[in-house]
Amino acid sequence: MKNYVIKGNICYSKTREELCITENGYIVCEGGRCAGVYETLPEEYETLPCYNYEDKIIIPGLVDLHVHAPQYAFRGMGMDLELLDWLNTHTFVEEAKYADLEYAEKAYDIFTEDLKNSATTRACIFGTIHTEATLLLMEKLEETGLKAYVGKVNMDRNSPKYLCEENAEKSVKDTEEWLMKSQRFKNIKPVLTPRFTPSCTDELLERLSGLQKKYQLPVQSHLSENLGEIDWVKELCPGTACYGESYDRYDMFGNNCPTVMAHCVHSPEKEIEMMQRQKVFIAHCPESNANLSSGVAPVKKYLEKDMKVGLGTDIAAGSSLSVLKAMVTAVQCSKLRWRLYDQSVLPLTMEEVFFMATKGGGEFFGKVGSFEEGYELDAVVFDDSKIKHPQTLSVKERLKRLIYLADERNITAKFVDGQVIFREN
Amino acid sequence: MKNYVIKGNICYSKTREELCITENGYIVCEGGRCAGVYETLPEEYETLPCYNYEDKIIIPGLVDLHVHAPQYAFRGMGMDLELLDWLNTHTFVEEAKYADLEYAEKAYDIFTEDLKNSATTRACIFGTIHTEATLLLMEKLEETGLKAYVGKVNMDRNSPKYLCEENAEKSVKDTEEWLMKSQRFKNIKPVLTPRFTPSCTDELLERLSGLQKKYQLPVQSHLSENLGEIDWVKELCPGTACYGESYDRYDMFGNNCPTVMAHCVHSPEKEIEMMQRQKVFIAHCPESNANLSSGVAPVKKYLEKDMKVGLGTDIAAGSSLSVLKAMVTAVQCSKLRWRLYDQSVLPLTMEEVFFMATKGGGEFFGKVGSFEEGYELDAVVFDDSKIKHPQTLSVKERLKRLIYLADERNITAKFVDGQVIFREN
Repeated sequence: MKNYVIKGNICYSKTREELCITENGYIVCEGGRCAGVYETLPEEYETLPCYNYEDKIIIPGLVDLHVHAPQYAFRGMGMDLELLDWLNTHTFVEEAKYADLEYAEKAYDIFTEDLKNSATTRACIFGTIHTEATLLLMEKLEETGLKAYVGKVNMDRNSPKYLCEENAEKSVKDTEEWLMKSQRFKNIKPVLTPRFTPSCTDELLERLSGLQKKYQLPVQSHLSENLGEIDWVKELCPGTACYGESYDRYDMFGNNCPTVMAHCVHSPEKEIEMMQRQKVFIAHCPESNANLSSGVAPVKKYLEKDMKVGLGTDIAAGSSLSVLKAMVTAVQCSKLRWRLYDQSVLPLTMEEVFFMATKGGGEFFGKVGSFEEGYELDAVVFDDSKIKHPQTLSVKERLKRLIYLADERNITAKFVDGQVIFREN
Repeated sequence: MKNYVIKGNICYSKTREELCITENGYIVCEGGRCAGVYETLPEEYETLPCYNYEDKIIIPGLVDLHVHAPQYAFRGMGMDLELLDWLNTHTFVEEAKYADLEYAEKAYDIFTEDLKNSATTRACIFGTIHTEATLLLMEKLEETGLKAYVGKVNMDRNSPKYLCEENAEKSVKDTEEWLMKSQRFKNIKPVLTPRFTPSCTDELLERLSGLQKKYQLPVQSHLSENLGEIDWVKELCPGTACYGESYDRYDMFGNNCPTVMAHCVHSPEKEIEMMQRQKVFIAHCPESNANLSSGVAPVKKYLEKDMKVGLGTDIAAGSSLSVLKAMVTAVQCSKLRWRLYDQSVLPLTMEEVFFMATKGGGEFFGKVGSFEEGYELDAVVFDDSKIKHPQTLSVKERLKRLIYLADERNITAKFVDGQVIFREN
């Protein structure tokens, strides 16, 4: 059933500055796509079935542009280190467990269930190096009805023996096998996932680039997150002018290769220009960047340059799977960056983080993240009545409050690409 | 019933570095006070009734050293301004409503209910200038069984007409009347609450100091939160060497006057020395300081000087009433301060924020915030089994994870001063 009407208080972004609110309005869904938002329902749609959410708040589904599914198992723990030590001490040890499908099954059940119940409708997800466990994750996600890109991770150097692929050839062979097996999924699509430059030999990146071209795949990876990491990449790639170039020289940095890079906290001007020109998506992960003492990305600057920016939770360097919390943390961190470090880059507004969490990140998936005409209909309905208040609030006040205070308990219904994922009553 | 045993996994601080964990241990409560933590229950206590929380996690009740009860009504809203504009635009407008007791009743019911259900057992609370509404707040809090200091706010200058007391004399007369009426409460005690120096004439502070001495009252206020505020105090108090002196010259800054000052983000060395010498408590409010772009207090430095430091949620400049969240935010903000601003002050550890949230802030209430012998027994029992995990975790791992991920849904029981506040089954 992909033709229907949803009624309620409708909030969505047109641009990063323009937040549109239609009180007691109607979203029309035709064939899974948005056919417009109306204050009064046009006659031609009156016969369509209507999900009536009356006084509730309806926003586009949230987009998590960067999340590591296997790391969900140790969220909230091991926050005492910076990136490289954190990877070696906590992360790689955990990811190695996914060689065991029984463990993967238990862990991915928990991740998938929580993601389904959250306000997230789309995500770019890292798996592990393990083909079978990654397919299992995709299968579980497929069943939820959510849409996501999932990547089997590639890493063939500078990784502990128990989590290092034999060589570039074997890594790519496994990846191609995984790609073939991934074709059975409808909602979940594969994304090439070289972990980050330090984990990938030149040969591996070159071969992955071959796969990218052969199958027209998108790519996700990490970029300029931590100062120690950036120095290391400089050593590893002596010919490059910036970290971004280590991907770009293998044609995996935007242009004809849809790319999302997590972090970009310390990107130099040259890298920023390249990302802008080549339309590389930035997954801004504020909680992760605080937890690992990485810093704060100059996000307002990226937005002002009309670069492609969305939000990522970056589980488990971020502790929370909630993109609502990522929105709040993004604003808070941008204020501290402004106050403590650089008054030339202004703090983010609520309108801007709402845009990033919806239409900004959604663009990586196509026409996603807004209720404008032609957008795939992803929607989340919030019942904020349990967040008690002594007086009447405007819809905009309720929306702002909800971003700070709501969690999965306040979600009444969720739609992805026009399909109902769940709904109360 | 104030003699009993609580069984479970017991976690508490002895010092800011030493987190004690007794797995499957026993806390003995005698006459409302802790008589020791034991791995094996001594024979003499075997006949006492036992609350058996088996595999759950038990920590001391959390202490919120700074929270504005009337502002709870607009938490999560109006986060687009710095302190002084935020006060004028959002805060004063809201606080004025508490002249209406019907509104106060509705609003304070919501605040009190949420505080009761939280992990907080003790709090230092600001009311408004209104005597009756503040008494109403105290009455509602008294019924919960929680222990708290509550202050009727004093402000007789630089405040909008609708929220400004007539003059110093009237302000103090009302305050004394409120003090008299407060005597009927057992758990809830009055605290003198000059809002902050900009809102209080010299005459008012002098008269309040008289009340302080007459009734031996503690004092709470704000200090060195925001750069604009600090400049303003400098103008208002030309004779003072630092903001702290504006309270100290009226003997309301530690020594014989138990004092808690919120924020201390930008305290100069002289002020820090004075706070250290005079044992002034600092309420560190990290979320508030981020939301209002105030900055980050150098908390590690305060701890290393053995100063008195606890945590505050500072509703509604902070959006969350959860001291657990304040702990996480304190660590995150200290990391960003270290990375972005000043590498001479190290980030906070989980052990340190746990200490601040319990024994550090608890000291303002006496022997509170630990399970060491002689401490008043405040305890919160967490059932973290709903925070699913694919493998076995140590109690310490579970505690860390709980601090990041738990909320009121995970609280099974709560004790204050040996009394049961609530408990499941």
